[in-house]
Amino acid sequence: MINIGLIGFGYWGPNLAKNFSQINGVFLHSICEMKKEKAERIKEQYPLTRLVTNFKEINKNKEIDAVAIATPPATHFKLAKDALLSGKHVLVEKPLTTTSRQAEELIKIAQQEKLTLMVGHTFEYNDAVLKLKEHIKSGEIGDILYIYSQRLNLGILRQDINAWWNLAPHDISILLFLLEKFPLRVSAKGLTFFNNSIEDVVFAHLDFDGSISVHIHVSWLDPNKIRKMVVVGTKKMIIYDDVSNDAKLQIFDKGIVKLDRPSGNSYPDSFGEYQLVIRSGNLLVPQISFTEPLRKECMHFIRCIRDKKKPLTDGESGLRVVRILEAVDRSLKNGGKSIKL
Amino acid sequence: MINIGLIGFGYWGPNLAKNFSQINGVFLHSICEMKKEKAERIKEQYPLTRLVTNFKEINKNKEIDAVAIATPPATHFKLAKDALLSGKHVLVEKPLTTTSRQAEELIKIAQQEKLTLMVGHTFEYNDAVLKLKEHIKSGEIGDILYIYSQRLNLGILRQDINAWWNLAPHDISILLFLLEKFPLRVSAKGLTFFNNSIEDVVFAHLDFDGSISVHIHVSWLDPNKIRKMVVVGTKKMIIYDDVSNDAKLQIFDKGIVKLDRPSGNSYPDSFGEYQLVIRSGNLLVPQISFTEPLRKECMHFIRCIRDKKKPLTDGESGLRVVRILEAVDRSLKNGGKSIKL
Amino acid sequence: MINIGLIGFGYWGPNLAKNFSQINGVFLHSICEMKKEKAERIKEQYPLTRLVTNFKEINKNKEIDAVAIATPPATHFKLAKDALLSGKHVLVEKPLTTTSRQAEELIKIAQQEKLTLMVGHTFEYNDAVLKLKEHIKSGEIGDILYIYSQRLNLGILRQDINAWWNLAPHDISILLFLLEKFPLRVSAKGLTFFNNSIEDVVFAHLDFDGSISVHIHVSWLDPNKIRKMVVVGTKKMIIYDDVSNDAKLQIFDKGIVKLDRPSGNSYPDSFGEYQLVIRSGNLLVPQISFTEPLRKECMHFIRCIRDKKKPLTDGESGLRVVRILEAVDRSLKNGGKSIKL
Amino acid sequence: MINIGLIGFGYWGPNLAKNFSQINGVFLHSICEMKKEKAERIKEQYPLTRLVTNFKEINKNKEIDAVAIATPPATHFKLAKDALLSGKHVLVEKPLTTTSRQAEELIKIAQQEKLTLMVGHTFEYNDAVLKLKEHIKSGEIGDILYIYSQRLNLGILRQDINAWWNLAPHDISILLFLLEKFPLRVSAKGLTFFNNSIEDVVFAHLDFDGSISVHIHVSWLDPNKIRKMVVVGTKKMIIYDDVSNDAKLQIFDKGIVKLDRPSGNSYPDSFGEYQLVIRSGNLLVPQISFTEPLRKECMHFIRCIRDKKKPLTDGESGLRVVRILEAVDRSLKNGGKSIKL
Repeated sequence: MINIGLIGFGYWGPNLAKNFSQINGVFLHSICEMKKEKAERIKEQYPLTRLVTNFKEINKNKEIDAVAIATPPATHFKLAKDALLSGKHVLVEKPLTTTSRQAEELIKIAQQEKLTLMVGHTFEYNDAVLKLKEHIKSGEIGDILYIYSQRLNLGILRQDINAWWNLAPHDISILLFLLEKFPLRVSAKGLTFFNNSIEDVVFAHLDFDGSISVHIHVSWLDPNKIRKMVVVGTKKMIIYDDVSNDAKLQIFDKGIVKLDRPSGNSYPDSFGEYQLVIRSGNLLVPQISFTEPLRKECMHFIRCIRDKKKPLTDGESGLRVVRILEAVDRSLKNGGKSIKL
Repeated sequence: MINIGLIGFGYWGPNLAKNFSQINGVFLHSICEMKKEKAERIKEQYPLTRLVTNFKEINKNKEIDAVAIATPPATHFKLAKDALLSGKHVLVEKPLTTTSRQAEELIKIAQQEKLTLMVGHTFEYNDAVLKLKEHIKSGEIGDILYIYSQRLNLGILRQDINAWWNLAPHDISILLFLLEKFPLRVSAKGLTFFNNSIEDVVFAHLDFDGSISVHIHVSWLDPNKIRKMVVVGTKKMIIYDDVSNDAKLQIFDKGIVKLDRPSGNSYPDSFGEYQLVIRSGNLLVPQISFTEPLRKECMHFIRCIRDKKKPLTDGESGLRVVRILEAVDRSLKNGGKSIKL
Repeated sequence: MINIGLIGFGYWGPNLAKNFSQINGVFLHSICEMKKEKAERIKEQYPLTRLVTNFKEINKNKEIDAVAIATPPATHFKLAKDALLSGKHVLVEKPLTTTSRQAEELIKIAQQEKLTLMVGHTFEYNDAVLKLKEHIKSGEIGDILYIYSQRLNLGILRQDINAWWNLAPHDISILLFLLEKFPLRVSAKGLTFFNNSIEDVVFAHLDFDGSISVHIHVSWLDPNKIRKMVVVGTKKMIIYDDVSNDAKLQIFDKGIVKLDRPSGNSYPDSFGEYQLVIRSGNLLVPQISFTEPLRKECMHFIRCIRDKKKPLTDGESGLRVVRILEAVDRSLKNGGKSIKL
Repeated sequence: MINIGLIGFGYWGPNLAKNFSQINGVFLHSICEMKKEKAERIKEQYPLTRLVTNFKEINKNKEIDAVAIATPPATHFKLAKDALLSGKHVLVEKPLTTTSRQAEELIKIAQQEKLTLMVGHTFEYNDAVLKLKEHIKSGEIGDILYIYSQRLNLGILRQDINAWWNLAPHDISILLFLLEKFPLRVSAKGLTFFNNSIEDVVFAHLDFDGSISVHIHVSWLDPNKIRKMVVVGTKKMIIYDDVSNDAKLQIFDKGIVKLDRPSGNSYPDSFGEYQLVIRSGNLLVPQISFTEPLRKECMHFIRCIRDKKKPLTDGESGLRVVRILEAVDRSLKNGGKSIKL
C-alpha cells in the first residue's frame, strides 16, 4: 500500500484525489487545504482521508510515502523541496517550477535522496498524443515543415501568472515529446489588456534544429475553446484537435511533391530547378481507445515509485519545459527579442 | 454603354469577365490573353468579345472606356500606368502595385487625367464584412482588444510572390476597412521551405493606435481551408468565418467585466484594485443576405465611372494596403525587426 | 438524514450512487449487486456503504427510507412493488414498468401507503429541455407543425428489450413534457436484423390533438451518436441537439408567412386564397447554465420525500410514457397498424 | 454539331443552358420561355440562341436534333411525347412523368422512333454517389441492413406537386442505382399543413428483396439544409452527406460481429446461439475528384445520341422511379397502406 498526501484541493487537486483514490493499492492518506468550503467537500467525498491545513503535517507524516502538489506555480519549488528533503516521492503539477534554477535544484535533491520526482505533463499520457507521435515517427508524414498550436478559451484571468505560464506548459511538453529535440531559439510577442505585467495573449515562435519551426498562440480571452495542433509534413499533414469527441486526430494525405528536372532540360522555367506539385488524397480519422490521461499519469507515478524507475515525465522533462517557458517570458519582457537556448 | 477591356484571363480574370458581361449597359469589348488554351475558352464563352494578345491593343483602342487588370502583381504598375496614360479608367486586382512608390505614381496620374482608379479589394464589398463593421461601429462589442486572422489552405505555391503578398492583401484591406485606422508598427516572421526568398508561411503583428493589436497568419501549406477573423472586444466577441455557408458571423455575448472596488474596502486582495469577472451569454448568428461581392465591386466601378465619384477602394486605399504589405515584407527580410509606419 | 438503498449497480446504478452520495443530508446506506467485479468497485468507492446481494435485505431494512431501482426493465415492477409494500419511497429507472397495468398497480399502492413513487425521466430535469419548453410556451415559435426526434448510436444490442423500449422512453417523456398533451394515435415500423422478436431500429409516428405530428427514429445500429429533436413551428424552428457541447439549442427565426388575399382580387392564381412566403432571419444559440440533470433529479426525489410533495415525474408520468411505449410496441407487432390511445 | 432546343428557363433550365452551351460540338440553338424577365436574361447570356415562346417552334424546327425539357412535372409527358413524335432526342428533367403509364408510352415511342430518351437523374452522375456504389459493390461493408435518407430544407412550398414528388426522385434514383434492386412493398405517411392535398413532409418505407429496408424523410419545412444518406452494413457503415464540402463520404469501420458458439457449448446464455459484439475502428474520408454532375449528365446525353447508345438513366430508369413515386403517393392517400409493387 502506498500512502499519498495531496497538497492543494483547488482546480486540479480534486482530479488527482479522485484518480489516486481509485487505484488499487493506493490510499489517499491526507489532503492539505486551507479554504473552508473545500474542506467540507473533502470530508464528504473522502471520509477516511485526513484533512490538514498545514503542508508540514503532510511532509512530516511518517506514514505518507509520496506527495502530490497541486498548488499555484509560485509555491511548487518550496513545497516540492520540503517534501523531497522529508524523504517523500513527489509529483508536481505543471510547470515544475517557475525558474530553471529551482528545477535544477529539485532534480539534484531527488537524485541525492534517491526519490522519484515527477511532473504532471498530462498530455504525454494522452492516447491521442501517443498516436500522433506514432504517426510522426513512422515517417509517413515525411519531413516536418512546421507546427502551429492554439490553446484558446474564455478562461479565468489569473493574477499570479500570465497566460503563457498558465497554458503553454501543455504545448511545450507535447512538442518536446513529439519532436525529441530542444529548440535553438525562441521569440514571442504578448498582449496585456488589464494588467501591464500579465500577458493575456501570447504568440511564440520556437526554432528547432533541423529547421522545424513552431508557432504557439495561447489566450484566455477567446470566444471558442480551441486546443489544436497542426503538424505540416512534406508528405502528410495531421490535425490534433483535443476538443473533438470523435475526431481527435485527422491525418490528411496531402503534401507537396518536388519533381526534379530531368538533366539537359533546356526550356526556360520560372520554377527554377524543380517543380512543386500539390497532392491531395484521403482523410483518415484513426480510432483511438481513450483512457483518462490523468489516470495513466497517476498509475505511472505509483509504478515508478514501486519499481524505482525514472518517470517518463521526470525532473529533467520538467526542467526542459521550464527553460523554454522562461526563455519565451524573457523575450516577452524584451520586446520580442530572439533568445538563444 | 461602357466598353470594358480585360487584361489577363488566368485565375481571376474569368470571374471579372463573367461579372462585367452580366451588367446591363456594360459590354465586355476585348480580352487580352496570350495562352492558347485560354483563348479557346474565351471564344466559346464570349463570342462577341474581341480577343487580343498584346495589351497595347486594349489600351490604344478608342472604343474602350475602362480597363480591368488581372495579371501577376509585378505587372500591375506598368499596365495600369499605360492604361491611365491612354485615358482609360482602371480597375486593378489586389495588390494595386508591388511598391508604395508605384501606387503613389498611379494615384497622381489618375488625378491629373481625371480618371477613375480602383483596386479590387473584393472583401470590402462582402456583405459579411459589412455586417461585421456594423456590429463593431455600433459599440456593442465594447473596446476592441485584439484581432487575429487566419488565411490558410493547401494552395498553389507561387514562384513570383510569397504567401504574404499573395494572401494578406485581403486581411489588410478588411482590417483597414473595419478599424478606419492605420497601424503604427508592424513586425513579422516568415518560414521558407522550398525557396529561400519566398515565404510559404507568415505570422505578422500589426499595432494600431489606441492599443489594438492584430495578428495575421497566412499559409499556402495547410490541410484545411481556413479564412477566419476573430475580433475580441471587452463586451462581445465576433468570429467571421468566410468558409462557413450558414454562419459567416457568430456574435458571442461574452466578455470581461471589470468590477471596481468600493472605496473604503480594506481587505487584502491579490487582484489589485479591481476584479475581472467573465460573462458568458447567448450566441447570435445574424442572417446575411448575400450578394456576390465581385458583382457588387464591378457594379461600383461602373457607377463611379458614370457618376465621376471616388471609389470606396480607390488608389489611396490600394496604397495604404501596399504600404503595410511592404513594411511587413521589410520586417520579414530583416529577421522580424519592428518597422515603424 | 435520509438513508438510500440502491438496487442494481450495472450501467446506470453507479451514476445514481455517485449523485445520492454527494447530496448533503443523504446517506447511501446499502447497495444490492450480485456481480463480483462490481462488488469490488463498490467497496473501494463507498467503503461506508453496506453491500448486499439480495434486494430483500434492502427492502426489509428498517434504517432505509427510500429505494432506488436501476435494474433491467422486466424486474422494475416486482422490485418496486416489494419496496413500496415494505414502506419505502421508490425511485425507478425509466421505463417505470413494462406494462401499463403494472404501472397502475404501483401508483395505487404508493397512494395507499402514502409513499413517494418517482420515475427517472432524467431529461425532464435537463436545462436544455427546460429552456426549449420555455421557448415553446412563450408562443414565439407560433403553432407547432411537427416534431421529429432521432436517438441513434452504435450501442449495445440488448437481448432483454428492443431498441424502442430501450431508447424511446427519453423521447416520449420529453415530448409529453413539452406538449402537455397525450397522443391520440400511434403507429410504427420496426426492423429486426439478428433476432426476429427484437427490433434494432424503430420508426414511430404519434398524432397529437390539435394536429401536431411527431416522428421518432431510434436505433442502436448507427455510425454516429445522434440525439436530436427538431421542432418546426409556423414562426420559428428549434433544433435541440443533446450531443452538442456549446449549441444544445438553436433557434432559427425561420418560418412560413401566410399572406391573405385582398378581397376583390380577381386575377387568376394557382396558390388558391393565400400565398405562402418563406421568411429567414437570425439564428440564436441561447446560453444555458447547465447543471447535471441526474443531480437535479436525485435532489428532487429527496425534496419530495421530505416535503411530501408529488414529484414532477411521478407514477402517473411513468404510466403515460409506458402506455405510449406499449401502444407503439403493439403497432410494431401488428405490421404497423394504427393504435388508438 | 448537335443542335439543342431547351424548353423551360425557370429553376433548372438555366443550369442546362449553361452546361450544354459549354460543350464543344454542341450548339444551344433555341430556348422556349414565356416569362418576360427571363427572356431578357436569355438574350444577354445567349445572344446567338433563338428565343421562342411556343414549344412547337422547337419541336418543329428541322435544325434542332435534341430537346431538353425543364418544365413543371405535369407538362413533361405532353412535351416529351410531342418532341419524340417530331423526331427529336429527348432529355427530360426528373421525374420523367407523373404516372407510370405515361412513362411507358414515352419509352415505346422512343423505341419505335429509334430516338434517345433520357431522364435527368443527376445524382447518378455524381462522383460521390459513384464512389459510394464502388464501396458497396466491393463487399467491404458486408450485408446492407438498412438505409435511411433525409432531404430537408426550408424550401419553396410548391403548389403543383407535393414534397414527395418534388424531392424524393433524387433519393429513389440513387437507391435504385446503388442497390440494383426494385422494392417489393412501400408505405408512407405524409403531413399536410397548408393544403390538405399537398404533403409538406413525407416519411416513406421501402422494403427490398433480400430484406433491405429503406426509410426516406423529405420535407420542405426544415430549419437546416440536410441531404444525407446513411448506409448501415454488417461490417461497415457509410454516411453520404451531399451538403458537406470536404467530407461527402464518411466510411466508418464499425459493425456488428456475430460470434458463433463453439459446438458442445453447454453454459446457459441469454444471447441464444451467438453473441453480438460491436466493433469500432477508423473513419475514412475518401478523396473524391469532383466534376459537376450536370456537366457529366449533359455530356452523356450527347454521347448517347452520337453513338446510338442507351443512356444510363434511360426511359426504363425513369419509369422505375415513377412507379415507386406513384406507389408511395398511393399509400399516402390511403392512410399509410402497404402497397405491393
